[in-house]
Amino acid sequence: MSNIKFTQNITNEIKHLIDDWGNQRCFALFDTNSYQYCFNYFEDCGLNEEHILTLPAGEAHKTLESVSLIWNFLITRGANRHSLLINVGGGTITDIGGFAASCFKRGIAFVNIPTTLLAQVDASIGGKTGINYMGLKNEIGCFSQPYKVFIDNRFLKSLNRNELLSGYGEMLKHGLLSSTEELDELLQMDLEHIDKKRYLELIRESVEIKAVIVEEDPCEEGIRKALNFGHTVAHALESAALAAKSPISHGMAVALGIVVELKLSELLMHFPQGWYHKIKDHILHSYPAYPIPVDQESLYHYMLHDKKNDERGINFTLLMKPGEFYIDNFCTHDQIITALNEIIYE
Amino acid sequence: MSNIKFTQNITNEIKHLIDDWGNQRCFALFDTNSYQYCFNYFEDCGLNEEHILTLPAGEAHKTLESVSLIWNFLITRGANRHSLLINVGGGTITDIGGFAASCFKRGIAFVNIPTTLLAQVDASIGGKTGINYMGLKNEIGCFSQPYKVFIDNRFLKSLNRNELLSGYGEMLKHGLLSSTEELDELLQMDLEHIDKKRYLELIRESVEIKAVIVEEDPCEEGIRKALNFGHTVAHALESAALAAKSPISHGMAVALGIVVELKLSELLMHFPQGWYHKIKDHILHSYPAYPIPVDQESLYHYMLHDKKNDERGINFTLLMKPGEFYIDNFCTHDQIITALNEIIYE
Repeated sequence: MSNIKFTQNITNEIKHLIDDWGNQRCFALFDTNSYQYCFNYFEDCGLNEEHILTLPAGEAHKTLESVSLIWNFLITRGANRHSLLINVGGGTITDIGGFAASCFKRGIAFVNIPTTLLAQVDASIGGKTGINYMGLKNEIGCFSQPYKVFIDNRFLKSLNRNELLSGYGEMLKHGLLSSTEELDELLQMDLEHIDKKRYLELIRESVEIKAVIVEEDPCEEGIRKALNFGHTVAHALESAALAAKSPISHGMAVALGIVVELKLSELLMHFPQGWYHKIKDHILHSYPAYPIPVDQESLYHYMLHDKKNDERGINFTLLMKPGEFYIDNFCTHDQIITALNEIIYE
Repeated sequence: MSNIKFTQNITNEIKHLIDDWGNQRCFALFDTNSYQYCFNYFEDCGLNEEHILTLPAGEAHKTLESVSLIWNFLITRGANRHSLLINVGGGTITDIGGFAASCFKRGIAFVNIPTTLLAQVDASIGGKTGINYMGLKNEIGCFSQPYKVFIDNRFLKSLNRNELLSGYGEMLKHGLLSSTEELDELLQMDLEHIDKKRYLELIRESVEIKAVIVEEDPCEEGIRKALNFGHTVAHALESAALAAKSPISHGMAVALGIVVELKLSELLMHFPQGWYHKIKDHILHSYPAYPIPVDQESLYHYMLHDKKNDERGINFTLLMKPGEFYIDNFCTHDQIITALNEIIYE
C-alpha cells in the first residue's frame, strides 16, 4: 500500500511529482476520454506539452500497436532510462502504459492516476500490466509495480452509472473475498447518487483488501489467484463480446462471472444458498440485462485459454462462504455448463 | 551462478529437463543456424515436434515481429502459464526468446542453451532480454532471469574463426574488469585451434566474473553498468552498421569499443599507456579490418541514445588499470571524437 496515495487534490500531487523529477523527464499518457474530462487538473502543473500522448479510448485499442505508439513517442521525444511515464485514465490506459514503460529500455518508472472507479479499486494497483492479443484478454504483459498510484475521488463525478457499475463489480468481488460485513456494506452502496466522501472510504477499503493479497503474492503464484474470483468466466464473456463486437464492461462481466462462480461454489463447496440468491438477485437487478452473444459451449472454449489453467483443467477460486476462499479448484465441463445456465436466457 | 550448469553432455541435460517438465509443457526455439548445427543433440530427447519453432537466423530478425511469431506459436500450440520455453542458439535467440517468454501470460519460465561462444560468455547469462527497435539496439526488453542456462563446449566445434572472435571480445572485456592475470591469460588464448577443455575453463572464468557483478546488481542500477565497458561505442557501431547494411559482429564491435573506451580511460583516468597499446595492438591484429561506414560525428549521435545516459550526457565505465573500474563517467564531445580517431582510418 505504500505506493498508493489517496488525495483530494490531484493537481498538487502532480505538481510535486513534476517538480521532483524535472519536466524533462516526465511524460504523460492519456486517452481521448481522460484527456477530455481530466486534463484540466494537469494544466499549469509544469508538464511539457510535447511530452503528452493521447491514444484513442476503448479496450479495442489495448493492443501491441498502441504499445508501439508509446515506444515511438518516447524515443522521438528523447526519453531515457531515468524518465517517468504518468498514465492517466481507466484500466486500459494504466495497463498499456505500465506495460510500455516496463519494457522501454528494460524498464522505466511509471505512475498511475486512475480516473475510473474500476481502475481505482482494481486495475491501476497491484502491478499487473498488459495488452490483449489474438483476441485473448491480457495475454501479453508483465508484473511490474507502479512507482506511485494517486487516487482522487473528484474524478468520479465525470462517470456515468454504467462506469460506476463497472467498478462496483470488482468491489463486490473484494467484499466476497473479505467478510460478510464488508459485503453487506457494498450491497447497500448507493449507485444512483455519489457521496464522494463515502465512496472514498469504500474505495480505500476495497484497495486495502486487494493490497494485502498482492503484497503476500505479487506474481500470482498462490493466494493472489483469489483475486481472479469471477474472472475465469468474466474473461470468457469479454473475449466472446470482443469477437462479436457486442461490448461488455469489465465490471459487468465480473458481476456475471461472480454469479456463475458462486453457483459453482454452491455446487462444489456448499456456499450458502441464501447468500447466493441474495447476491445473484442484487447483481441481476443492479446491472442492465446483457444478451450473451454466444452459447455456453463457446464460453467454455474461451475458458480453456485462461492463464491460470494447467494440465488439470480450468482453474477457479471458489468460496465456502463470504471471506473464506480456496484457490486452484478444477471443475468439470458439465459443472461449468450448469453454472453458466444461471446467466444465459434463451 | 546457481542457475548456470557447465556440461559436456547437453543431450542428457535436455532429456532430464523434458522428463521433469513433461513434453506437453516444453517448447523449443531455434534459428536456422542452431537448428542446422545443433538439432542433432535434441533428437530422441522426447521433445514434441510440433513444439519446435525455427526463426530465420541473424540480428536483422531481432524484432518485435519475431517476438509476435513466438507468441502466436505458443498460443496456437496451447502453451499455458506453466509451460517452458527452451531457447537454443546465439545471443539473438536467447534475447528474443527470453523476452517473449517473460511477457507471455505475464511470464513463463525459459531455459537458455547458448550455442555460440558469445552467448555462452555473455548474452545468455545475466537476465537481460530484448529486441532492437527503431534501429536502436535492445531498446525494448526486460530483466528476467532464465530458469537454467546449460553451457556445453561441444557446440564450439561448429563455430568459425569470426564467431570465436565475436565471443572473445566479451571475454577480453571481462578480463579487463577482473585482473591483469585474467587479462594475460586471455591475451594468450589460441583462437586458431580450439582446445575444448581449455576453452571450457576460460569460459567458466569469464562467466564467473560476470555472474558476481550481476548477482550484486541484477537490474543495472549501479555496478552492473561496468559490464557495459566498451559497449557505449559498440552499440553505436552496431546501429551504424545496421543502418548501412554493413554488418559487424557484436564481439568485433565490443573489441573496437574497448579500444576507444580504453583511450578515454587513458585520457581521463591515466590508464597505463603500456597496457593500452598492448591491448589495442592485440585487438587490431586479431580482428579483420572493419571499415566503419560513418564518420565520428554520426557515431557520436548514435551514442546519445545509449540507455545508460541521463541529463549529464553520455555515460561510460572507465578503467584506472585492469581490474579497477569506475562507472558513471561523462565525457565531452571532443574527448569522444578524439578517442574515436583510434579506430577510424580515412
